[in-house]
Amino acid sequence: MKLQNLKGTTDFLPNEQIVRNNITDVLRKYFERYGYLPVETPILNKFDLLAYKYNEDAEILKEVYHLSDQAERELGLRYDLTIPFCKVIGINKDLSMPFRRYEIGRVFRNGPVKAGRAREFYQCDVDVVGIKGRFIEAEQLLMVKNVFEKLGIDIEIKWNNRKLMQGLLMELDIEESLIDKVISLIDRIEKTTYNELVREFEKIGINKDKVDDIFTLFDKSLNEYVNLYENTTNSILKEGILECVELNNYLLSLNVKCAVFYPKLARGLGIYTGTIYEFFDKDKKITSSLGGGGRYDKIITDFMNNGEEYPAVGLSFGLEPIYTILKDNKSNNNIIDVLIIPMDTKIESLKLADILRGNNINTLIEMNDRKMKKSFAYADKNSIKYVIVVGTEELENNMYSLKNMETGEQQMLSIDDIISIIKK
Amino acid sequence: MKLQNLKGTTDFLPNEQIVRNNITDVLRKYFERYGYLPVETPILNKFDLLAYKYNEDAEILKEVYHLSDQAERELGLRYDLTIPFCKVIGINKDLSMPFRRYEIGRVFRNGPVKAGRAREFYQCDVDVVGIKGRFIEAEQLLMVKNVFEKLGIDIEIKWNNRKLMQGLLMELDIEESLIDKVISLIDRIEKTTYNELVREFEKIGINKDKVDDIFTLFDKSLNEYVNLYENTTNSILKEGILECVELNNYLLSLNVKCAVFYPKLARGLGIYTGTIYEFFDKDKKITSSLGGGGRYDKIITDFMNNGEEYPAVGLSFGLEPIYTILKDNKSNNNIIDVLIIPMDTKIESLKLADILRGNNINTLIEMNDRKMKKSFAYADKNSIKYVIVVGTEELENNMYSLKNMETGEQQMLSIDDIISIIKK
Repeated sequence: MKLQNLKGTTDFLPNEQIVRNNITDVLRKYFERYGYLPVETPILNKFDLLAYKYNEDAEILKEVYHLSDQAERELGLRYDLTIPFCKVIGINKDLSMPFRRYEIGRVFRNGPVKAGRAREFYQCDVDVVGIKGRFIEAEQLLMVKNVFEKLGIDIEIKWNNRKLMQGLLMELDIEESLIDKVISLIDRIEKTTYNELVREFEKIGINKDKVDDIFTLFDKSLNEYVNLYENTTNSILKEGILECVELNNYLLSLNVKCAVFYPKLARGLGIYTGTIYEFFDKDKKITSSLGGGGRYDKIITDFMNNGEEYPAVGLSFGLEPIYTILKDNKSNNNIIDVLIIPMDTKIESLKLADILRGNNINTLIEMNDRKMKKSFAYADKNSIKYVIVVGTEELENNMYSLKNMETGEQQMLSIDDIISIIKK
Repeated sequence: MKLQNLKGTTDFLPNEQIVRNNITDVLRKYFERYGYLPVETPILNKFDLLAYKYNEDAEILKEVYHLSDQAERELGLRYDLTIPFCKVIGINKDLSMPFRRYEIGRVFRNGPVKAGRAREFYQCDVDVVGIKGRFIEAEQLLMVKNVFEKLGIDIEIKWNNRKLMQGLLMELDIEESLIDKVISLIDRIEKTTYNELVREFEKIGINKDKVDDIFTLFDKSLNEYVNLYENTTNSILKEGILECVELNNYLLSLNVKCAVFYPKLARGLGIYTGTIYEFFDKDKKITSSLGGGGRYDKIITDFMNNGEEYPAVGLSFGLEPIYTILKDNKSNNNIIDVLIIPMDTKIESLKLADILRGNNINTLIEMNDRKMKKSFAYADKNSIKYVIVVGTEELENNMYSLKNMETGEQQMLSIDDIISIIKK
């Protein structure tokens, strides 16, 4: 048997996984700071739950891994964290509303395997059910800004509103049945050529002139829309513009300068009902989005189907694109602080190591009785900053030689001094 | 469609998941303190990797979830973290040895669904490849002791040695071909009745008298074995006893009092080649093991098949049994520090919240314009300790009312005072 990973899957070795853990640690910390609580849902689900039609885009179902168990039950691997979230709301009738949760976990897609398309990848989702309005949306964007500042990534948040889009298309006399399709074509403006897009529009019966009208109308500032439709009777358009103005005011007051109104932003899924957002790397190290989200007031409401409203809004951070940007930041990926080399002092070295560990110092012991030179080379290769040699003389004097591998400096020190130097 | 989870899977709601995160956070921290580095491997694997026979116990293969992708590749969901670890060693020829890694992740078993048997559950594994001898084994048991002390679980570590077991069975003239089977029956001594066990032994041709001999011989102290076989020529037995004495000396010197030599401990898998260990809840809140491990010097060596030796030793902590013990510890499962109630001060409240968040305070804002009584009830229901009300008057004076929900005490305070009180 040839040892290899399945195409489209990856092992993350320590120097990679440390970076990934740092990212998810930051996400967890910020999610909790903003009042989101952790929830974890199974990867294995009843297939019929996953097949539950929650958006127009049934394409996704082709990508669900389908399997069965010993009892011939039909199962599937989750392909996102939104359906599981909706299920949690549906099963637990006594949740105290509003309910804010985050979940960081793997999702699976049985897509054609090609570069950049993983079979399994992490989504990091925050959602809240039970809050209407722009206040929570502004807070989510503030959180996005702060998360990326902490991660050291300069981002641009593009935001828009589905009601505005729908209203504008109504002004252009686009048939209602075509609106979702047109919105998903608008979403592709930056991903394809003008001619290709015109061909796509023609396929659904919208000619070139109309396409030009659409492009012109979807290229205005928020103020222009406000002025243009001050006295409109198109209530969806009116509502959309009002929501945009409201969110814009929040963002100005909160000084979220990285957020820009971008009327061509559509987000693929048909689930969104109001504000939508998507965030990008300003340095364009990668051009696909680092995450996004928006308001989806209908899906849980439909899902519950009990006559009550379940407004919801959330966002999803993509661990994989964030990791792609940060993976070469080697600065923060050594987590072993010190290597202890015992010279016929195994037990005493273990005791010393445990004192250091009790002081939050990550400590490795050389256990193979290698030549000292080899042990130092190991420390060097693995970027371990300090090495302590423990011989019988050192034990008698209770003073140990600490070598700083970066500077080459070597000192005889007490345990307390060693601890305070390493912790610095 | 009826909303429900697949039998044998569970959603973990916040009050549960917070406890689970606390456990895995402790494990991660301790694993890193002892020099193990994080690795993450895919859940989806080529089926032939998972089917690679690495132990006598091929039973496990029946429990591998089998599926295929769009290109009809044969895939499987990993059922443990050991095979993936071996694969990582095999694929990455330039790993610096010894290589210590930990992985915390879900594994999947397609077993008959019954109480206490989950389809997916977490294993938390630490392993090192490239170190022989008892020194590392002693360090692993010291880590186990410290981890459970930190978790607040009083444990007993039972340990034994496969060479000792094999040597003793050779003394009883048990055929070599039966030794693995006999060891797995010895493992069941405490899980079944004497009569049932005798029947099982008879099935493999070992009569009742012999069974009694086995039970008698496997019920001695380490000292008794040392004295009994001082001059033995059975080299496997000799080696086993020597290894036990060596490990015992380490454990005495390191004061690992919770570790007891237990010659009937077998551990099911046939992969072990020397020391084995298993840890149990002393309070017997659950009787199954909380984890275990041991030395397996042959499996990676066989797996690599390149003429070099790959001694390995590791242990696995079971998140599920540990969680079962700790899940009722409600003390530590509120992570929201404060609820802010804005009184027509949405933006200012968000700004105030962000100051608190910048000081590591997990802050929730009431966003639904509910009656104040309802917001206080929400804080109470969700065990949020502090509530701050932000009205326009408070903003003018830059003093805010902080209510301690546990004592009922309410004070007007500056932001700085609020921060220092909440952080206490």
